[in-house]
Amino acid sequence: MFRNLKGTLYTFAKRNSEGIFCGVAGTGLLTVYAVNKDNFSPDKKPHHAFSLFSSSSSDIDLSDCLTNTITDENELRANSSQMKNRMEAFITNLQGKIIKKLQSFEPETKFKVDRWLRKEGGGGITCIIEDGQVFERGAVNISVVSGMLPKAAVNEMRARGKTSIPAGKDLPFFACGISSVIHPRNPYVPTVHFNYRYFELEVAPNKFEWWFGGGTDLTPYYLDENDVKHFHSELKKACDKNDKSYYLKFKKWCDEYFVISHRNECRGVGGIFFDDLDKPDQDKVFEFVKSCGNSVLPSYIPLIEKNKDKGYGYKEREWQLLRRGRYVEFNLVYDRGTKFGLLTPGSRIESILVSLPQTAKWTYKHEPEVGSEEHKLFQVLKNPKDWL
Amino acid sequence: MFRNLKGTLYTFAKRNSEGIFCGVAGTGLLTVYAVNKDNFSPDKKPHHAFSLFSSSSSDIDLSDCLTNTITDENELRANSSQMKNRMEAFITNLQGKIIKKLQSFEPETKFKVDRWLRKEGGGGITCIIEDGQVFERGAVNISVVSGMLPKAAVNEMRARGKTSIPAGKDLPFFACGISSVIHPRNPYVPTVHFNYRYFELEVAPNKFEWWFGGGTDLTPYYLDENDVKHFHSELKKACDKNDKSYYLKFKKWCDEYFVISHRNECRGVGGIFFDDLDKPDQDKVFEFVKSCGNSVLPSYIPLIEKNKDKGYGYKEREWQLLRRGRYVEFNLVYDRGTKFGLLTPGSRIESILVSLPQTAKWTYKHEPEVGSEEHKLFQVLKNPKDWL
Repeated sequence: MFRNLKGTLYTFAKRNSEGIFCGVAGTGLLTVYAVNKDNFSPDKKPHHAFSLFSSSSSDIDLSDCLTNTITDENELRANSSQMKNRMEAFITNLQGKIIKKLQSFEPETKFKVDRWLRKEGGGGITCIIEDGQVFERGAVNISVVSGMLPKAAVNEMRARGKTSIPAGKDLPFFACGISSVIHPRNPYVPTVHFNYRYFELEVAPNKFEWWFGGGTDLTPYYLDENDVKHFHSELKKACDKNDKSYYLKFKKWCDEYFVISHRNECRGVGGIFFDDLDKPDQDKVFEFVKSCGNSVLPSYIPLIEKNKDKGYGYKEREWQLLRRGRYVEFNLVYDRGTKFGLLTPGSRIESILVSLPQTAKWTYKHEPEVGSEEHKLFQVLKNPKDWL
Repeated sequence: MFRNLKGTLYTFAKRNSEGIFCGVAGTGLLTVYAVNKDNFSPDKKPHHAFSLFSSSSSDIDLSDCLTNTITDENELRANSSQMKNRMEAFITNLQGKIIKKLQSFEPETKFKVDRWLRKEGGGGITCIIEDGQVFERGAVNISVVSGMLPKAAVNEMRARGKTSIPAGKDLPFFACGISSVIHPRNPYVPTVHFNYRYFELEVAPNKFEWWFGGGTDLTPYYLDENDVKHFHSELKKACDKNDKSYYLKFKKWCDEYFVISHRNECRGVGGIFFDDLDKPDQDKVFEFVKSCGNSVLPSYIPLIEKNKDKGYGYKEREWQLLRRGRYVEFNLVYDRGTKFGLLTPGSRIESILVSLPQTAKWTYKHEPEVGSEEHKLFQVLKNPKDWL
């Protein structure tokens, strides 16, 4: 363990000179290490040891990472101008930052950290908590994969409008992303989901098509309009910083995507969602994605703090479990990421299915009583509205 | 109401002269009426009131029905040589027979009987119990639908090998079936599923393609080899009566169909499953389907009787709920019937999703301890075996 500290020290010294992440990152890191010993990453190698000597004009900040990165850290730093490395570093660090914040609500139950590698290349880091006081089940995962994309999938991408992709052959790809679902125990704390991802396809030698996708959305069990407004306004801030047209566009996209079609109702009260984003340019889209990723904590944490200790009873719990049944229906029947994962041979099923709640229920023809608090939510799920 | 009675009288008078089912139908009928008054079907018209006087050369036996049939009973009887009517009568009566038997285990909780009609034609009868002493959630449904099958679906049938179906146009179809999932409360009582269905497609004016499909399969939470053997041997008896080659063939088909592919494990310990069965001829296949339908009670009821009062604790209940999570995964991700239903506009979602358990759980990377009773089952799910 002390070997690690030394490496860490050097890294921070270097970063310090850039004067950007010093205080926060430094503090964060020491905290990690203190926490690491027991909880987080027994397998973390002293990967920062030589970064003192590396150049880094880049935004590679790994100060909050929970384990070794999936791609070797030296490689990430050495090629820190490549978007795939910048995005991997961003999501790995964001994962750490979010886990640490969530962990602070749970003095007794620790997040499990599973770093896994695929034999075909790449891997992921799955962080999951179960049976916590505040979080009944929740996970924040990253994955980093590369390989050959089968031509069937290539053609599907073409069909989606990416006509510059050559049809009819397998192509090398790279994909990385962070994705998370948090199912709190208290029915007054909403479930949150977010996912930010980057995709790269080598359409000709050294010629790449790339795009980003992602979103953050909220699934309350009871409607507190102030909470929903706070959540949406943080997302809007993240959007507005980058493009004033984004929030409305991506809010609508979110409302249209998270629909349980067979029930003709939305999964929750929305948020933002986008895909195939490749304009105006790579740096600007990445900046936008970083704004979104960084808005997760400010948009959601206040909702936990405000509601986690509210009293509730059998009725509220039952309603929460029924709505979690709907969550399962959406994720298994409609969610493109889940379906793609389940149908991809060799994917890590346990990491994909951490999006499911710990417990879900189904009741025949359940309809909330008109005028009840449950019905108030139900109405909004049937008719998505503007929150801001 | 009385207008119907008159029609019924005439119909029955006609059939009576053919003298086959008179006594049985009559006896069965009186029983139904005794039960009906309190539990089953407040909306049942007194359609059998005069069956003592009816003729019946056909196998239209409606003595156990819980409500009015979906297709008017007069129509069923008047055209009792048509397979669609014979099958509708069979499944409607079988539903009643099974519900009455299951109801006998539940003195306090009654099956709900929902008869529903589609505006496009046809409808169904959904019978469901929830929160029973023996059955946590269970349903036996029938549905009878007809209309135009969109050419996309027609083409899919062609692709499945039915090359006599003309491509490229919508075709009139008729489909009816019975389907059921019973999730008992006690983890020592297995879940059972069965489904028998008939499909008819009018490929040219008055020229029909038809086939039957179906199966019965068992999903235990703990492995009692004697129970599984009993279950399979009853199915084998039903098969053998009709064709000695059926059991092995359809047992294999079942093992191959009920696979949770992403977990590389079977849903349960199998049973039989078949589809597109149209040989040797319509009567013989119908006889086989009837044998199968009639084997549901003798194959399953003894397992309820033997295990329903066994003691169990938290560990057994938790394992049952985890396995129910797997059941949800199979049904929502793979089951063709469920998927087809969910994606068909206007289908009755609540009737489709009664196959889901009342409660299901998910736990990250749960693996039963080697040597445990849970592990014993798990091994069999990983490697389906021959039971007889």
